[in-house]
Amino acid sequence: MPTVNVALGERAYSIHIGRGLLSDAAYLPARLSGQAVAVVSNETVAPLYLQTVQESLRAAGARPFAIVLPDGEAYKNWQTLNRIFDALAERHCERGSTLVALGGGVIGDMGGFAAACYQRGMPFIQMPTTLLAQVDSSVGGKTAINHPLGKNMIGAFHQPSLVLIDIDTLSTLPRRELSAGMAEVIKYGLIRDADFFCWLEANMQKLMARDQTLLAEAIYRACRHKAEIVAADEREQGARALLNLGHTFGHAIETGLGYGVWLHGEAVAAGMLMAARLSMQLGWLPLADVERIERLLLAAELPVRAPEMGAERYLQLMRHDKKVHNGRLRLILLESLGKAVISDAVHEAEIARAIQG
Amino acid sequence: MPTVNVALGERAYSIHIGRGLLSDAAYLPARLSGQAVAVVSNETVAPLYLQTVQESLRAAGARPFAIVLPDGEAYKNWQTLNRIFDALAERHCERGSTLVALGGGVIGDMGGFAAACYQRGMPFIQMPTTLLAQVDSSVGGKTAINHPLGKNMIGAFHQPSLVLIDIDTLSTLPRRELSAGMAEVIKYGLIRDADFFCWLEANMQKLMARDQTLLAEAIYRACRHKAEIVAADEREQGARALLNLGHTFGHAIETGLGYGVWLHGEAVAAGMLMAARLSMQLGWLPLADVERIERLLLAAELPVRAPEMGAERYLQLMRHDKKVHNGRLRLILLESLGKAVISDAVHEAEIARAIQG
Repeated sequence: MPTVNVALGERAYSIHIGRGLLSDAAYLPARLSGQAVAVVSNETVAPLYLQTVQESLRAAGARPFAIVLPDGEAYKNWQTLNRIFDALAERHCERGSTLVALGGGVIGDMGGFAAACYQRGMPFIQMPTTLLAQVDSSVGGKTAINHPLGKNMIGAFHQPSLVLIDIDTLSTLPRRELSAGMAEVIKYGLIRDADFFCWLEANMQKLMARDQTLLAEAIYRACRHKAEIVAADEREQGARALLNLGHTFGHAIETGLGYGVWLHGEAVAAGMLMAARLSMQLGWLPLADVERIERLLLAAELPVRAPEMGAERYLQLMRHDKKVHNGRLRLILLESLGKAVISDAVHEAEIARAIQG
Repeated sequence: MPTVNVALGERAYSIHIGRGLLSDAAYLPARLSGQAVAVVSNETVAPLYLQTVQESLRAAGARPFAIVLPDGEAYKNWQTLNRIFDALAERHCERGSTLVALGGGVIGDMGGFAAACYQRGMPFIQMPTTLLAQVDSSVGGKTAINHPLGKNMIGAFHQPSLVLIDIDTLSTLPRRELSAGMAEVIKYGLIRDADFFCWLEANMQKLMARDQTLLAEAIYRACRHKAEIVAADEREQGARALLNLGHTFGHAIETGLGYGVWLHGEAVAAGMLMAARLSMQLGWLPLADVERIERLLLAAELPVRAPEMGAERYLQLMRHDKKVHNGRLRLILLESLGKAVISDAVHEAEIARAIQG
């Protein structure tokens, strides 16, 4: 079974990728034995996988209990977070208890943030069930909730102790969410691996048909990229910011339309194309490459046209994003296909042009 | 001016102790120039020192703005924390902006936790204005808010970038709060410095008369102890737990009576005496030493009798505290006067006897 190691010294951990992992107690750490384990999930995922995970935990000697939350980005807020804290406190969870986040990106981010804050930090395990969470949010320790004025504004860096990616969960994933996850897969090709981009161009049709072998390969390659980037820059002081390609535009879309109207991956897809167009305006990327990116996104059934909100509204929302530095917008752009760079030197009028597309 | 360095590698920082520090821009870091700085304070402290601090910040080239919260432990909760987040987001604060916590332990803990979470972490400066905050909570990076089921249940380890202790602020401190802070000063003598305990016995009368020279000396010695302990064990995996002498009993008092009825330091004082009595029951501490501790606490005008709540209620509240490990109460006890140890081997019946006094 493919395993990726995230080399973070005393916070190092493994990402296991394979089939049937949720039902196999062998992948769970021995220290769970005798411990209370909170399984945080949502109303969509719990009916599918909660029982399986609880049985594995019991087989590992743990005492699992469930915290089932409403599903959706709209619930990634204080109120829902507090429901996790209440349940942990009522069950007398301790610093040594473990939290399992079983679900997509919202559950992983919010469960992870709860684990970061409860008693100033408890261990947690990521069991991502969406492609997006598997290739992106479950790896790297970024946890957060949303604030009315900005996405992921309140959060922490808190690394999981283990990530279990069970490919079987993708069989129940709605097609729209498969596409949304594919946006983040494509991102790795764009920012640092032109070969992977070509591989995705060649295989996107089969990937969208859920070919298990190819999906496992894509997830493995994506996780390896993410692990390398995170190991080099855990707290996003430098190169980790490249992972935000398309995200400043994307967050503006998500916030502007209201969380959950567009999926995160959909907003990132449209945002990546805006970043590509801006890179072309700056003379870095040829039109042919912008068109290749657009074609690959379309093959992954992703939106390539951002919603109409007016350039000024976009800029206003982008200024609220975390990627502002000394008052200047800091964007991730493409120097070439497969090589991203950080830039805070682009004039806002130029950005507005790319937005208007 | 005495300075204590907290040796935490890339998170190292200085604690400056002296008079007139709040009105002196020279102690502020150069990187504040041109930056937005949020000064978090409360309705009691703001009228006394907010203007002074804002003028110093302006003199250092920063753009300060104030977030003034209601005063008291009862407000150390989500609702108040969200007021800080709202203000930071409305003012477009970035990861590079700085938060200043100007006030006592509640402001320091809550301001620090806001800084830990806002955009996953922004720098913050502690300007503690109570003796308790100066000798304890402002140093070491423990930040938190309360949960209805337990004190400081939700929080983070987030080190300040600087601590400025202006002794002049003690002139406006209510006498009851001077006493409460003195409980934490006495604690350092009890857990690791018998000499300091003797020095406090000799000087308590003058300290309570606010002798500036002696207060500066006491704060310096307390901060040096705290800095040494934190540098050796930042995240409370081991020896840092010794700082919790009296705190498990104390938190039970605070939670049992409702936050704010007893001051934290008062609860710790009564709790330390309970721990001393328990240590005596175990045959570690002679009665004469328990009596010396009681006399010193009384000289600092601190309560030495815990409120009547019944031993079972105490134990129930203590089981909810963060200091539970594998389901056993973990207490800090005194092997001798000046030497604390961690123990999770004490039978609950024995603890109940110490509670009944």
